[in-house]
Amino acid sequence: MKLYPIIMAGGSGTRFWPLSRQARPKQFLPLATKRPLIVDTLHRLPPLCRARDAFVVCGKAHAATVRKLVPEVPRTQVLVEPVARNTAPAIGLAALHVAHKDPSGILVVLPSDHHIADTAGFRQALSAAAALAAEGMLATLGITPTRPETGYGYIHLGAPLGDRGRSHAFRVQRFVEKPDHDRARAYLQSGDYLWNAGIFVMRADTVLTQIARFLPRLHAVLETLRPTIGTRAYNATLAREFPHAEPTSIDYGVMEQAEGIACIPGDFGWSDVGSFAALPEVRDVDTHGNVASPRDVLVDCHGCVVVGDKRPIAAVGLTNVVIVDAGDTLLVVPRERAQEVRAVVETLSRRGESRLL
Amino acid sequence: MKLYPIIMAGGSGTRFWPLSRQARPKQFLPLATKRPLIVDTLHRLPPLCRARDAFVVCGKAHAATVRKLVPEVPRTQVLVEPVARNTAPAIGLAALHVAHKDPSGILVVLPSDHHIADTAGFRQALSAAAALAAEGMLATLGITPTRPETGYGYIHLGAPLGDRGRSHAFRVQRFVEKPDHDRARAYLQSGDYLWNAGIFVMRADTVLTQIARFLPRLHAVLETLRPTIGTRAYNATLAREFPHAEPTSIDYGVMEQAEGIACIPGDFGWSDVGSFAALPEVRDVDTHGNVASPRDVLVDCHGCVVVGDKRPIAAVGLTNVVIVDAGDTLLVVPRERAQEVRAVVETLSRRGESRLL
Repeated sequence: MKLYPIIMAGGSGTRFWPLSRQARPKQFLPLATKRPLIVDTLHRLPPLCRARDAFVVCGKAHAATVRKLVPEVPRTQVLVEPVARNTAPAIGLAALHVAHKDPSGILVVLPSDHHIADTAGFRQALSAAAALAAEGMLATLGITPTRPETGYGYIHLGAPLGDRGRSHAFRVQRFVEKPDHDRARAYLQSGDYLWNAGIFVMRADTVLTQIARFLPRLHAVLETLRPTIGTRAYNATLAREFPHAEPTSIDYGVMEQAEGIACIPGDFGWSDVGSFAALPEVRDVDTHGNVASPRDVLVDCHGCVVVGDKRPIAAVGLTNVVIVDAGDTLLVVPRERAQEVRAVVETLSRRGESRLL
Repeated sequence: MKLYPIIMAGGSGTRFWPLSRQARPKQFLPLATKRPLIVDTLHRLPPLCRARDAFVVCGKAHAATVRKLVPEVPRTQVLVEPVARNTAPAIGLAALHVAHKDPSGILVVLPSDHHIADTAGFRQALSAAAALAAEGMLATLGITPTRPETGYGYIHLGAPLGDRGRSHAFRVQRFVEKPDHDRARAYLQSGDYLWNAGIFVMRADTVLTQIARFLPRLHAVLETLRPTIGTRAYNATLAREFPHAEPTSIDYGVMEQAEGIACIPGDFGWSDVGSFAALPEVRDVDTHGNVASPRDVLVDCHGCVVVGDKRPIAAVGLTNVVIVDAGDTLLVVPRERAQEVRAVVETLSRRGESRLL
């Protein structure tokens, strides 16, 4: 069995403004290490699978950057969506391409903008998931929750499926959408619920079969596209057909409906690097819990996140404050309100300051 | 009687770092209006007195900037101190120069780094003080206190001296050094104590007489210097003699000891612009009490001070925070701790980052 990384790089969120811009979304930023998240995403996979077997799915505006950042992915495997249609069409498109080369090839679907500290543990879990996928199951990794997070979907574990390699496998009872706080607390206490990190491992033909069953419009798009792969007709067909696919997530469109879903629980220092507030999870912190550069001067600061450009940043007497210098603009926000940077982006958008968006 | 503005520009504080630097102290910054404080200081005096009659006392490192910013002050009236020796020697030197031209000329001693909103009221008070000075008194303006400030010296008023023009004049019982908080509160409640703003009005010959009485070393320096004014020997004599003067303030060295001191109480929107925290006193604030530029984006911020360079600054959910962008470095500090920027300057100094000092 052969594994094909499918790197989902269609994101265009604003939670890392002003570092992220429309042309430079989160996956292209070096948020956790010195390399962009998408580069780390590919580099942590060998020897389990290889970058030259990877497919990256992204939008038109980002294709050139993808090709530049991960040149080891062949140009024909950078799959450019004509329009963003959520994850089910993106994965369907990738599955079609993999199936074209290798019908029983295994897709390893990975968000391009997460961080994983324990890469060996991660690969071990993926390997176990690949063994389940080879058996025809839809496999997913579930992250052991550490807090009653209301921002993620959850995976409700069912009966054990025995071991695959050094990992324990479970059936999935169901995928659960983002819960409210009480429910999230109950999930955390029960021990039967894991975070859904959007990491899926499944055979190309299995994915296409499930799409045929649950997403008939996407299925029709893919069937129309299939004979054009590798021909001149491909781009025009994709542009014409892709917008007709159901704009839904793979979670909602397939996983919540299908049977035969398996989960490998894991705990490998995963972080979705959800906002500036999360940087202390993935970066070195000083003795006062601050993330900052050695050139910065922090006096009596605690739990701050200081992200600089080239200038030194000085801060005195701040607790849990995020300071971001993007070169052409600055942001200051309390850590617990880091997500509200969207309001700034909306204001700049209303003012027509496209330079800063 | 003729009035000679004496602009005290020897300051080199660090409370406005990173805007202020060793080469660009507070008096050269446009903190209250679009003009540097020292420029406003001279421009608010006419028609009471004229810039071309003014003397500016400053240090070597700042003479060129003074000449550039206030070219209307004749070059020979920019008095360069070879070393900083506090205010008594600076005022003594200015008095010597004024006396050389006009022994009964009246010095109007003014800090170069304060802001005054009601310039007409201010000139009226200065005019009344000049009338007292003409009678041979040492006159000062006293600012009606609005809070139990522990950072200023106070003037304890004595018996009324009748009116001078439209102002009420009082004898001064004594000058009081910076009080503790309880004492400051008692001063505020009594109504007999005014803030000492370092504004003095007195005849040149009166000042020199008082210096002869209380500061014998400064007196000797000035007597040695007197015959060299306007000659080639002046600079060398100043450099040799000036360091021997008592390094003391005019308040402590003369005012606290002398008799015949008068005060004109006033309330003319005075601010010493003591730190970034004081900018809302002297600048326009928005409906949430923030000082910011229209290019900035403040979302749910209150009482913040945002001082930018060219870049727009975005802030979300901050209360009473100072954000300063100096172009080559940034500062973020809670308003009530704005004075602690000194700690940053000390750290940079230890690191030898002279570029930022």
